[in-house]
Amino acid sequence: MENGSVNHEMETASTITIKGILSLLMQNLDENNCKRLIPLGMGDPTLYSCFHTTHVAGQAVVEALQSDKFNGYSPTVGLPQTRRAIAEYLSCDLPYKLSCDDVFITSGCTQAIDVALAMLARPGANVLIPRPGFPIYELCATFRRLEIRYYDLLPENGWEVDLDSVEALADQNTVGFVIINPGNPCGNVYSYQHLKKIAETAEKLKIPVIADEVYGHLVFGDNPFVPMGVFGSMVPVLTLGSLSKRWIVPGWRLGWFIIERIKKYFDILGGPATFIQAAVPRIIEQTDNVFFKKTINTLKQTSDICWDMIKEIPCLTCPQKPQGSMAAMIKLNISSLEDISDDIDFCFRLAKEESVIILPGTAVGLKNWLRITFAADPQSLKEALGRLKSFCKRHTKLMLQQQQ
Amino acid sequence: MENGSVNHEMETASTITIKGILSLLMQNLDENNCKRLIPLGMGDPTLYSCFHTTHVAGQAVVEALQSDKFNGYSPTVGLPQTRRAIAEYLSCDLPYKLSCDDVFITSGCTQAIDVALAMLARPGANVLIPRPGFPIYELCATFRRLEIRYYDLLPENGWEVDLDSVEALADQNTVGFVIINPGNPCGNVYSYQHLKKIAETAEKLKIPVIADEVYGHLVFGDNPFVPMGVFGSMVPVLTLGSLSKRWIVPGWRLGWFIIERIKKYFDILGGPATFIQAAVPRIIEQTDNVFFKKTINTLKQTSDICWDMIKEIPCLTCPQKPQGSMAAMIKLNISSLEDISDDIDFCFRLAKEESVIILPGTAVGLKNWLRITFAADPQSLKEALGRLKSFCKRHTKLMLQQQQ
Repeated sequence: MENGSVNHEMETASTITIKGILSLLMQNLDENNCKRLIPLGMGDPTLYSCFHTTHVAGQAVVEALQSDKFNGYSPTVGLPQTRRAIAEYLSCDLPYKLSCDDVFITSGCTQAIDVALAMLARPGANVLIPRPGFPIYELCATFRRLEIRYYDLLPENGWEVDLDSVEALADQNTVGFVIINPGNPCGNVYSYQHLKKIAETAEKLKIPVIADEVYGHLVFGDNPFVPMGVFGSMVPVLTLGSLSKRWIVPGWRLGWFIIERIKKYFDILGGPATFIQAAVPRIIEQTDNVFFKKTINTLKQTSDICWDMIKEIPCLTCPQKPQGSMAAMIKLNISSLEDISDDIDFCFRLAKEESVIILPGTAVGLKNWLRITFAADPQSLKEALGRLKSFCKRHTKLMLQQQQ
Repeated sequence: MENGSVNHEMETASTITIKGILSLLMQNLDENNCKRLIPLGMGDPTLYSCFHTTHVAGQAVVEALQSDKFNGYSPTVGLPQTRRAIAEYLSCDLPYKLSCDDVFITSGCTQAIDVALAMLARPGANVLIPRPGFPIYELCATFRRLEIRYYDLLPENGWEVDLDSVEALADQNTVGFVIINPGNPCGNVYSYQHLKKIAETAEKLKIPVIADEVYGHLVFGDNPFVPMGVFGSMVPVLTLGSLSKRWIVPGWRLGWFIIERIKKYFDILGGPATFIQAAVPRIIEQTDNVFFKKTINTLKQTSDICWDMIKEIPCLTCPQKPQGSMAAMIKLNISSLEDISDDIDFCFRLAKEESVIILPGTAVGLKNWLRITFAADPQSLKEALGRLKSFCKRHTKLMLQQQQ
């Protein structure tokens, strides 16, 4: 695991983004390659037909639009009925009731992240961010002039938070402690016990927890999804979420941000389209549980395929079977490869030779790792992992090949 | 005209927003008042049935949604077909062709403003903003730690820019010069000659012009709408706009930002919903000109009503007949009123006594002025202005009343 300085990482943050690197990888495809392109780089399941939103969601948006009542501005904090529906939806899993005043509607979870960091930013402040993590945090913090301090996730402990490193990094200028659960990019799901320890650490350090739960409820392993808000009485929790992943509509840009009153800041933000907001109460109320189960089943199946097939590739190791979200981190044994210098080189050559797009770990903070998104249809995923295997085989050092 | 210091104004900016003050006014309504509420405070014409978007726009969005092709992420800079459609739409009025790479899709014009100011911000930088103006500029600049310097608009010269004050305010740290045309809140439309002088001043001072053209094409006076981009060869122009006003869909949050490549910053932004973006090419191509003409005719009619009826109210003066946008600035002769201390007091008592909401000028930078939005149906507008007249009459000093 590379332990670069904060400054080095901030430089990285301002030059590497997931979308940026994926678009470079796309440009690196070989036009003469007859292999069908299989993108496993981005967490956008809509690329595959087995992931499809539920009919009622689209219908609710169409009806809100056609009612002609929602073409005007919405309140900057969101429509009241939308805030109420989200408050009730989230309260189902909490030991207390959220009020609709605690809910702010944002343009996707990305804007919720930006709001959280902008609110916490003040001169000299720093924020604790997981490594590997989600690069938007680095980018937002850099733009908000908030110092970034990376704490490590421990692959050998199911990607749990290294709480000792959190304690070592925090000081009196630490204004927030970001956790992402279910984990992107690691596919882990934290147990109640681990989340409690996180809350205890934050309480001891007197810093609020920013709980990124954009993959909330997308779990298919042993640990159930426990929202960080369960520990809201111990430590202030800012919960971020969206319709994007559970409802498979990332392009609708309907996210939320949960906290006590912070209305002021929202006056400069444009939230999502009013008519989409107006559709939310019906989307939440009427979505059949069968729809959610189908998504989870598909993700369980594809994560199993990923886990089983990666085991068969000698130069790759997945330290933890994914239990949630849509991605897994795979360790790359670079020394066993003949002519590949690092994870970035690996991904660029893979794109060119095999028309398979996966994300270099460097983009999420871990050099010589790979992030594979398994939110793909089983057939495409199998084909992509088959190609990944022959790519690895072709580039493995000759001596090692003979041993295999 | 009040000439407060920059610091004073920045304090104002962080405490006053249009939406904030309008919501206070709404809370100040008298529940026992049987008069129907008439809101003339916000530039949201969808509140009145005579302003209604065109059928093709809604249809294009419904079809994009129902195609099921646009539920995923869009590129952070916007869908290519959307950027192309906006580039072609704007190029019609320019002496050169915009490329789709020059167009960035934002979540309404508000996000375009924030992007413009965030891009220009650097330690010590300042930006020139019109007074009266649009408070979102102050708020965004404050959040981006950009110093605000107000230049005056001259009511006696049709709210033209006081170019001498611009020259006096600019220094080597000035990074931008904001102009809003057609004018919000003044209802003015700049002539080609005046825009040329603005371009010459900006060229001399070596500062880019940020041209807020959110009300572009909504003109009904003598001056045609001339986009600032016409002078793009003399001075760098960042043009901001949206579908909101011309298509009467402010709640759809579909805005744009025109400049050369600045892709990086967009990676942290969530733009508008992908399926709305996908509808834009059809919306632009298929909207009948009759729809635009109808809007303009209604605005011309309501601005005439406003102009004629304000003339009949002794304590109010409108220095310039509105020629564009949806609002006019009205000077309040506070000394002729018996028991009203300033524009804020005026608007609060008007809300309570008459159930009419108009915006105190302080919210847009001019104390003891009023901003009246005339994007209302003619009947409501007449009724509201009638009530405004009796309110003024009731509060006029007794001595003056006898003279009338």
